[in-house]
Amino acid sequence: QSSVTLFGIADAAVRQVKNGSAGSQKQLASGSNATSRWGLRGVEDLGGGMKAGFHLESQINFDNGTADANKFWGRRATVSLMGNFGEVRMGRDYTPTAYNTFADEFGIVGVGSRGIFSYGAGSNLGSPATTVLRADNTVGYFLPNMGGLYGHLQMAAGEGVNGNKYVGGRLGYEAGPINIGFAYGKTETGATTPDFKNYNIQFNYKFGFATLHTLYDVKEWSPRKTKDLSIGATVPVGPGALKVGYTRADRSGGTAGSGFSDADDSTRLGIGYVYDLSKRTAMYTTYGQVSNKGAARSSVLYTPPAGMLGGEKSSGLEFGVRHTF
Amino acid sequence: QSSVTLFGIADAAVRQVKNGSAGSQKQLASGSNATSRWGLRGVEDLGGGMKAGFHLESQINFDNGTADANKFWGRRATVSLMGNFGEVRMGRDYTPTAYNTFADEFGIVGVGSRGIFSYGAGSNLGSPATTVLRADNTVGYFLPNMGGLYGHLQMAAGEGVNGNKYVGGRLGYEAGPINIGFAYGKTETGATTPDFKNYNIQFNYKFGFATLHTLYDVKEWSPRKTKDLSIGATVPVGPGALKVGYTRADRSGGTAGSGFSDADDSTRLGIGYVYDLSKRTAMYTTYGQVSNKGAARSSVLYTPPAGMLGGEKSSGLEFGVRHTF
Amino acid sequence: QSSVTLFGIADAAVRQVKNGSAGSQKQLASGSNATSRWGLRGVEDLGGGMKAGFHLESQINFDNGTADANKFWGRRATVSLMGNFGEVRMGRDYTPTAYNTFADEFGIVGVGSRGIFSYGAGSNLGSPATTVLRADNTVGYFLPNMGGLYGHLQMAAGEGVNGNKYVGGRLGYEAGPINIGFAYGKTETGATTPDFKNYNIQFNYKFGFATLHTLYDVKEWSPRKTKDLSIGATVPVGPGALKVGYTRADRSGGTAGSGFSDADDSTRLGIGYVYDLSKRTAMYTTYGQVSNKGAARSSVLYTPPAGMLGGEKSSGLEFGVRHTF
Repeated sequence: QSSVTLFGIADAAVRQVKNGSAGSQKQLASGSNATSRWGLRGVEDLGGGMKAGFHLESQINFDNGTADANKFWGRRATVSLMGNFGEVRMGRDYTPTAYNTFADEFGIVGVGSRGIFSYGAGSNLGSPATTVLRADNTVGYFLPNMGGLYGHLQMAAGEGVNGNKYVGGRLGYEAGPINIGFAYGKTETGATTPDFKNYNIQFNYKFGFATLHTLYDVKEWSPRKTKDLSIGATVPVGPGALKVGYTRADRSGGTAGSGFSDADDSTRLGIGYVYDLSKRTAMYTTYGQVSNKGAARSSVLYTPPAGMLGGEKSSGLEFGVRHTF
Repeated sequence: QSSVTLFGIADAAVRQVKNGSAGSQKQLASGSNATSRWGLRGVEDLGGGMKAGFHLESQINFDNGTADANKFWGRRATVSLMGNFGEVRMGRDYTPTAYNTFADEFGIVGVGSRGIFSYGAGSNLGSPATTVLRADNTVGYFLPNMGGLYGHLQMAAGEGVNGNKYVGGRLGYEAGPINIGFAYGKTETGATTPDFKNYNIQFNYKFGFATLHTLYDVKEWSPRKTKDLSIGATVPVGPGALKVGYTRADRSGGTAGSGFSDADDSTRLGIGYVYDLSKRTAMYTTYGQVSNKGAARSSVLYTPPAGMLGGEKSSGLEFGVRHTF
Repeated sequence: QSSVTLFGIADAAVRQVKNGSAGSQKQLASGSNATSRWGLRGVEDLGGGMKAGFHLESQINFDNGTADANKFWGRRATVSLMGNFGEVRMGRDYTPTAYNTFADEFGIVGVGSRGIFSYGAGSNLGSPATTVLRADNTVGYFLPNMGGLYGHLQMAAGEGVNGNKYVGGRLGYEAGPINIGFAYGKTETGATTPDFKNYNIQFNYKFGFATLHTLYDVKEWSPRKTKDLSIGATVPVGPGALKVGYTRADRSGGTAGSGFSDADDSTRLGIGYVYDLSKRTAMYTTYGQVSNKGAARSSVLYTPPAGMLGGEKSSGLEFGVRHTF
């Protein structure tokens, strides 16, 4: 039937990573410029400005041929009704705070991205919250396009699972060179533990010669807290673009040695070049480096390998191909 | 290649359910008007009236982005040869007794459907039978269309797994306002235990203003037995249809407290409205209620939640969107 | 989007197998003429002779509706850049020695194929090597088409998993009636155990009335070794083709009773007929028989059933339908 679109991204890279005492390793990686995926989506015009649609998206790991074993359609599985009123969306979806982080120079993936902190191991501060990037059982409402204003409200039913019950929202403005957005989300973590909170502000600005990307992302699971400030740029150079980015993750409140104490800060530096072979296909290279203090174990691998100790450095260099279909 | 059709249904609903001592819960549900799914199918004309085809269908859970983790193509996976002789079909398929239950006012799904008894927890009467709804390793034969007469024979190889070896058949007549069908199936459950048996008769009649749906479904795993009598109606009202249905599940033979004794009967009442936004898309609402006696624990959730006790009531109210692609 | 092709094979067969003391069993089998599968692939012309592409392929088991639970895209998941220089391919792919075995009369599947030895249980000689048929984390290079010469080099990163680190290559010539190829591969199996080695030579020749298929396949995990010599033929008969094949598996080096000792040899005999209903669809029947000596337990089922003892005979007869989409 003509009502469904099959889409996806095939992205693979060779890389060398080094993670302190865990040593260095050659790897084949999947999705270092954009997460490898395939999906189905469709929109039906119902007349009178109304539309119905769905979106299904499944991760592909090109390195070993696996899909997401737990949630096959884990990237997104939503049903929508759209109209002049905006969009009502039900299913598994990104949270508002997550949507607020995507206008990134590195697309939240690869060894050089600020996604290392936003979504890497420990990004829920050790809480049971499952809602840092996406949430199950959500009902969301998106504002219609109103002169650059955008907005998103989302609630997720807990259905008896600790760390699933969520409410959040996002409000922003994108017009001309400016994109600024604020988002806030709160997740219940149990009867006797505080809510997990996440709020962030993104500010992107398109200069004539480059785009500036900034994000200030705060996560809190009292007394643990992390304040991550990122700044980056995308600079068109030749038939592609140079990308640079820096993040300082300022952790506090956790007990000594927990990886969430005042002494456990980290920084990340990423630099890369994406060479466009066509609109759909690009070659890319990225270098990323994470410096950790105290018991911090952030890694360019998002999840640190077992042998890596607190305070050690992590770095990676990758060369890949990204093909959109 | 143009020889394959990609199809599916995206269906999600918000609901509130209440299950006795387990209390009430807000949920996002997937597939309450029609099971959410996607699939691939194709038919090739071989000439001389012969055709070859296949059908693959996979469940989607829009609430949490999962597929069926055990059987990805678990809804159906079949290869067919068709001709004037009818159809020979091999693979995982619905059983004849299951095909006999589908012309239901609620489509065997959602909080108001008679499917709660036909396919909910305990529908195999606690036996090892895996064949209540579908069977693995089947070879089936379907009669060709003969003036309204339809028929289906099916055998399933056990391949050494208890509860898999099955034989069943169905014979019916559908013409004008009438659809009447009878089906019978038998499953081996082990060397020293009796066969699990299922037989049912459906009778549907299209009056001018409404359609009547009736099903008498008997399951037996001696000495346990359940006789489920369902009656329902679909009544076109405005740009949609009103649906009502009632079932009495009359259980017997099991020991006291087993949930299958004489005292363990249940009834279900469902009422709903489906509002068609287009041929492909509808909004719907359904209310369902299950009353249990004795140790019976039937639930609008098909599988009762852990905290629900025998004899308690279960109910649910849902609002959803179903979109066919 | 028009840039992606959805393809696949639906193949199911009824069969009766007999495996020594494990007795005989009726089965429904999936993929006895060609492995049942579906996939997505695409190629984009980048201009200047350059192309980008991807290939994803997932196994389907029509008997029970399952996919590969561990590796959904386990048959192949690759991203490629192609040009006058040849092809660079990254991802999970077949190994060079595997590519060298596919021009088989039975397509490496079903009860009559030489694949019983090449890829059945024990084909890695009990080593940890995971690379007999496919490898994860590979980078491969394929020669461009050069007057019949073909070649393939492949490296697989171990990424810390024993039995994954691999290097192999293949060189061959195909023109007119001749197809001859040589392949070699080596897999690391641990610090204190020898490499697992596999090398083979295929020689196929198209006579006027038939095609000859030969393969000499050697696997070595010192001191264990197997030398498998296969000879087969495909003979067009009527609207289809007769297929016959024979293999002698000459094992040595293992301790007595291990299944890999000098006494543990096996032979296989396969005969079948494939009747083409169209270019895309065929019916087929195959008879296969495996004779084992000593502690050898090779089976027409590729993995011997638990009850089958060393030295026992295995046989199978199957009738099926294969439909390509």
